[in-house]
Amino acid sequence: MDVPLILLVALIAGIISIGMALYFAKLVLKEDPGNERMVEVSGYIKKGSKTFLKVQYKILGIFVVVLAVALLFLPSPFEQSTTYNRLIPGALNWEQMIAYIIGSFGSMMAGYLGMMTGVETNTRSAQGCTVSTKKGFDIAFFGGAVMGLAVVGVALIGISVLYWIIPDPMIVLGFSFGASSVALFMKSGGGIYTKTADVGADLVGKAEYNLPEDDPRNPATIADNVGDNVGDIAGMGSDLFDSYVASIVAAMMLAATLSIIGTIWGTMSDAIRYTFVVFPVVLSGVGLIASLICIYLIKIKKGEDPGKLLNLGTYLATIVFGGLAAIITAVMTLGLSNEEMIFLWKLYFAVVIGLLSGLVIGFTSDYFTSDDKKPTRTIAKSAQEGDAVVILSGFSYGLLSVVPPAIGIVVAMAAAYLLSGLFGVAMAAVGMLAIVGTIVSNDAYGPIVDNARGIAEQGDLGEDVIRTADKLDSAGNTAKAITKGFAIGAANLTVLALMFSFATEANDIQSGTIDVVNLLNVDVLIGAFIGVVVPALYSALLVLAVQRNAAKMVDEIRRQFEENPKILTGEQAADFNKCIAIATKGALKELILPSIIAIAIPISVGILFGVAALGAFLTGAILSGFVFAIFMSNAGGAWDNAKKWIEDGNLGGKGTATHKASITGDTVGDPFKDTAGPSINTLLVVMSLTASIFLGFLMLFGNGAGLLIF
Amino acid sequence: MDVPLILLVALIAGIISIGMALYFAKLVLKEDPGNERMVEVSGYIKKGSKTFLKVQYKILGIFVVVLAVALLFLPSPFEQSTTYNRLIPGALNWEQMIAYIIGSFGSMMAGYLGMMTGVETNTRSAQGCTVSTKKGFDIAFFGGAVMGLAVVGVALIGISVLYWIIPDPMIVLGFSFGASSVALFMKSGGGIYTKTADVGADLVGKAEYNLPEDDPRNPATIADNVGDNVGDIAGMGSDLFDSYVASIVAAMMLAATLSIIGTIWGTMSDAIRYTFVVFPVVLSGVGLIASLICIYLIKIKKGEDPGKLLNLGTYLATIVFGGLAAIITAVMTLGLSNEEMIFLWKLYFAVVIGLLSGLVIGFTSDYFTSDDKKPTRTIAKSAQEGDAVVILSGFSYGLLSVVPPAIGIVVAMAAAYLLSGLFGVAMAAVGMLAIVGTIVSNDAYGPIVDNARGIAEQGDLGEDVIRTADKLDSAGNTAKAITKGFAIGAANLTVLALMFSFATEANDIQSGTIDVVNLLNVDVLIGAFIGVVVPALYSALLVLAVQRNAAKMVDEIRRQFEENPKILTGEQAADFNKCIAIATKGALKELILPSIIAIAIPISVGILFGVAALGAFLTGAILSGFVFAIFMSNAGGAWDNAKKWIEDGNLGGKGTATHKASITGDTVGDPFKDTAGPSINTLLVVMSLTASIFLGFLMLFGNGAGLLIF
Repeated sequence: MDVPLILLVALIAGIISIGMALYFAKLVLKEDPGNERMVEVSGYIKKGSKTFLKVQYKILGIFVVVLAVALLFLPSPFEQSTTYNRLIPGALNWEQMIAYIIGSFGSMMAGYLGMMTGVETNTRSAQGCTVSTKKGFDIAFFGGAVMGLAVVGVALIGISVLYWIIPDPMIVLGFSFGASSVALFMKSGGGIYTKTADVGADLVGKAEYNLPEDDPRNPATIADNVGDNVGDIAGMGSDLFDSYVASIVAAMMLAATLSIIGTIWGTMSDAIRYTFVVFPVVLSGVGLIASLICIYLIKIKKGEDPGKLLNLGTYLATIVFGGLAAIITAVMTLGLSNEEMIFLWKLYFAVVIGLLSGLVIGFTSDYFTSDDKKPTRTIAKSAQEGDAVVILSGFSYGLLSVVPPAIGIVVAMAAAYLLSGLFGVAMAAVGMLAIVGTIVSNDAYGPIVDNARGIAEQGDLGEDVIRTADKLDSAGNTAKAITKGFAIGAANLTVLALMFSFATEANDIQSGTIDVVNLLNVDVLIGAFIGVVVPALYSALLVLAVQRNAAKMVDEIRRQFEENPKILTGEQAADFNKCIAIATKGALKELILPSIIAIAIPISVGILFGVAALGAFLTGAILSGFVFAIFMSNAGGAWDNAKKWIEDGNLGGKGTATHKASITGDTVGDPFKDTAGPSINTLLVVMSLTASIFLGFLMLFGNGAGLLIF
Repeated sequence: MDVPLILLVALIAGIISIGMALYFAKLVLKEDPGNERMVEVSGYIKKGSKTFLKVQYKILGIFVVVLAVALLFLPSPFEQSTTYNRLIPGALNWEQMIAYIIGSFGSMMAGYLGMMTGVETNTRSAQGCTVSTKKGFDIAFFGGAVMGLAVVGVALIGISVLYWIIPDPMIVLGFSFGASSVALFMKSGGGIYTKTADVGADLVGKAEYNLPEDDPRNPATIADNVGDNVGDIAGMGSDLFDSYVASIVAAMMLAATLSIIGTIWGTMSDAIRYTFVVFPVVLSGVGLIASLICIYLIKIKKGEDPGKLLNLGTYLATIVFGGLAAIITAVMTLGLSNEEMIFLWKLYFAVVIGLLSGLVIGFTSDYFTSDDKKPTRTIAKSAQEGDAVVILSGFSYGLLSVVPPAIGIVVAMAAAYLLSGLFGVAMAAVGMLAIVGTIVSNDAYGPIVDNARGIAEQGDLGEDVIRTADKLDSAGNTAKAITKGFAIGAANLTVLALMFSFATEANDIQSGTIDVVNLLNVDVLIGAFIGVVVPALYSALLVLAVQRNAAKMVDEIRRQFEENPKILTGEQAADFNKCIAIATKGALKELILPSIIAIAIPISVGILFGVAALGAFLTGAILSGFVFAIFMSNAGGAWDNAKKWIEDGNLGGKGTATHKASITGDTVGDPFKDTAGPSINTLLVVMSLTASIFLGFLMLFGNGAGLLIF
């Protein structure tokens, strides 16, 4: 049972990727970090970011150890499995446990690497802006690429090496669970941190004392900059790391367990089955190569719009990937029977469909959040009628913006299914995430230039440089709309595929008694009911957390200004560390309850109502999570851009009542788009993986029918 | 096949109820309508309300005729049905069509009657306040009871007479569809109307010109008062009429088609089967009698809190109903076998469970929206940190408030199901709605005293009388929290029962091929996906409609103040009619798209993806609709009461920045709690009934598997 050599494509791509990441990091580090003040500020940001990660990783470490022990002693799903290609039954589930630890560690490492590069890049990009837009852009872009390449590289190396050693997707599942449980902490913790600082800084600094953004006199400015790094770089990186791995593992699991391929699967030789199981990994490797090519090709010319260039990179990566993937698919069809060949090509087209629908979802996010499109303009105009109306219209457009991506997902799902069954749906998710290298690079570029702008301000680089940095910053926002759409769409298809693979797995263990998740069964319906409520509860908890912490931050800033008036005159430096400590402590404290929910609720549903109800629970959570994630992200993005559009001098510009109302919209949108909205993805992935991982344990209760048997 | 005589209980209760309604109406009309100015204002309100209903009923008439013709020519579900107790197959579905027309007419009549009494009562209650609190309260309470009794009376007479003539629940289904399609128009149209006027009046009058609430100089004041009547009396009445009828029909359908009772059902004689089918109707009759008794018993004493008294009435009705229902159940067990008797008692306990969980849901709404409980206090306090924070905390608590009712529904569903299967779940819904007479009476009391307060203000009755009217008004709000919780919980269980009955019916026609709504089938999953999105889309459309219309209203008010400065000094009357016309036209125009959605989307899902997908669609819509309805109602209620608490002098009281922020919360909450939130119930009922009614038609497409067969 040898794993096909073609898997080397993924491993080699991963290794090249890490090499390129290191090379880019070196390139960036060679650059001039700027004047003394800039280095000082950048040093504060670095220190704050490190402190947060250190404390976070300490708690995470405990969490990982506890879960690892649980994994080791829980009944392993392998023991009950009867399918092809399973581990030998054993008392301890140590293989999956080790994979879990490696996954956790990989996720932490990718986050750390990316973030450390980010904090080194920001000051250099700011300094680069003093030379030229191109210089500033290139440095930031390479810095972002380090994160993108590290994430994908670590993921692909991890998956392919683990699968080479033990060719069972259940091992990769353990790796994925590790990645996701870390991501949940990183994403919610980082999200609470960044908005605590941002909202706190804005509420006092901007609203009460009329300080500009990133003003060094504001004690929360550094915390705000740290937040960009821990929330938007490290958090987002772990998030996409986790979606990426999960999409691959879902497809592998389905390939290994499903009889979906019907007649073909039965007649296939073991060697050829392997071809199908590794197909998602190989294609992801090809996607990484496409991303590498495009990162290399992206060169800004004078007068070019950097935002458009970033998006051009995304489109280019799509096309290059489509071509390369066709070549590798053709190579992989060698030695296949006619029927098998047709099926592999169908899977290829499912991948293409996923990729295209990812673009469609990206476009709609862009439509609903761009300041040159109708929704954001309407929201901006409604600010003229006051705070309440701007909230109502952002709320409504946010909800409306759910419709087109829903159609996109539904069409992708239907088309992929018609082509090649549930395996096809999983491959569509793999397709959406194939160019994640580009996506993460573009996304990490955003907070880097955001920070660069702050450093330019605090380092007194002058109006011109700040304007250049501003231009780069707004390019980051343009790119973000599309990458965010991609991330949400892909996560959604991925969790659906995970749900399918969970149900198939459950069915497999039960030898077919749970082959339906029938909504007409009351226990299943109850599962769906609870599932639908969870994303609402989770969002509420995160938003409340931000609000509570921001209130503490507000008190601290006010206290500093009142006790030491010299801070406001600039004669004395504000006490940044107090603010950093508040954000750090608050974020870590507040993420514990939501994290427990993500693990405890699916297990409880499984114990009480059974495995079929747990399938419905996941489905309910996925569907309502989709609505909440898109609604919150897009409403938040639109409010933000409506405010920026007004600040650009429209509708009276800064300082007007209209502007004030638009700030209210933006402040409401902040925790929507940067804390709750994006955390929902991770929540869904963690819950889905928890279901799969704890499946063997859940079979102990009424043989999978739960304690409350209906 | 004679219908059991016990059904007379429902018919007689219905007739008594109508008699009592007329008697109360006469009592109210005898009272003094107050001074000339009050009669004038009340006349304006009456005229505006009538105008709206007239135009609305005209459009509704066209809608009803079109649907009636469609019903007549569509393939009837009877033709394919094989079960017990079905109509003879025929070419035209005229029986159901006639029932549909009667249902529509009944709903319109109940709305009209209740509203007309409301507009006569308000001025008399205001005048009553000049005598004593008791007098003002009694008049308003009797006026509200007219609505409550009319709604329930018409419903019970309609159902029992129709069933007596043609003993098939499908006939009652037609009646229910008529009631619901009218309710959808009344509720969304009324909801848009009332908030157009309210938000418009507040934005200009209160915020820009500092006019108090209900100031006669504000041109939108009369439109605002009209809105209370058409939205909160007529709209809410039709809404509860429709939930009430739907809960009964769902239980009857399940009793008639299901084999849920397993072995018992098979061995039962026809006569005894009838006992079970009419059981929900009879119990509803008993509930009406309980409501009548409690309405009679409610007498306010000096110094008593009217809000507590209204809630006491609700609890009392619950207890009286529980007792009476036990007696009637005991009577109905006469002649049953031992096994049958036990089953009937189990159904009785399912009813009690429903009733209790209705109370629990009511309590939680109360907890999350009362100004003496933590959530509303926290929201009020967060207003000190500005507009954005008050929005965020209301949003979060609104989402949190979904959790306890979800637990309530889940527990009720599970317990009722364990007792007596799906029939039990349907009976729990019947139980929740059994005391709807009391619920509607208490609910209709609210807008009456709200209007009375406005008339007292405009009729210059002095500070003391206004304070008395204020007290009565705030009692209305207290009662509303509980009744609203009841209404949403009951509607939710009802639509679940309707979904079950739809699926059972589909299964019945298909002779068993659609007995599962399996989420692992991609077409079913797609159905669920679309279903989850619809309530979000619907809410967005309604909120946008309010916002668009309110903007027109704002322009009109500003225009009047600017063109005629004498309005502000009180020397010349404002042009009320222009504002009324804007609200009327806008509401009717804006409700067309949402109404089409409610009918067209379920039919399209059925045609494209089949009947099983339609079942999942309904489930998805019900679950996410539950989340949105409760979130929006409670967030809106909490913001409203937070503002009122501040206006009572807390946290600095009126005129402070905190107060201003709380007004922003209230304005955002207005369309949440009075337009979108409560309309979702009706949307869900209409969609569920559409599915059942069009089932025969949908069977034409791939024999119920849809055009896009997977």
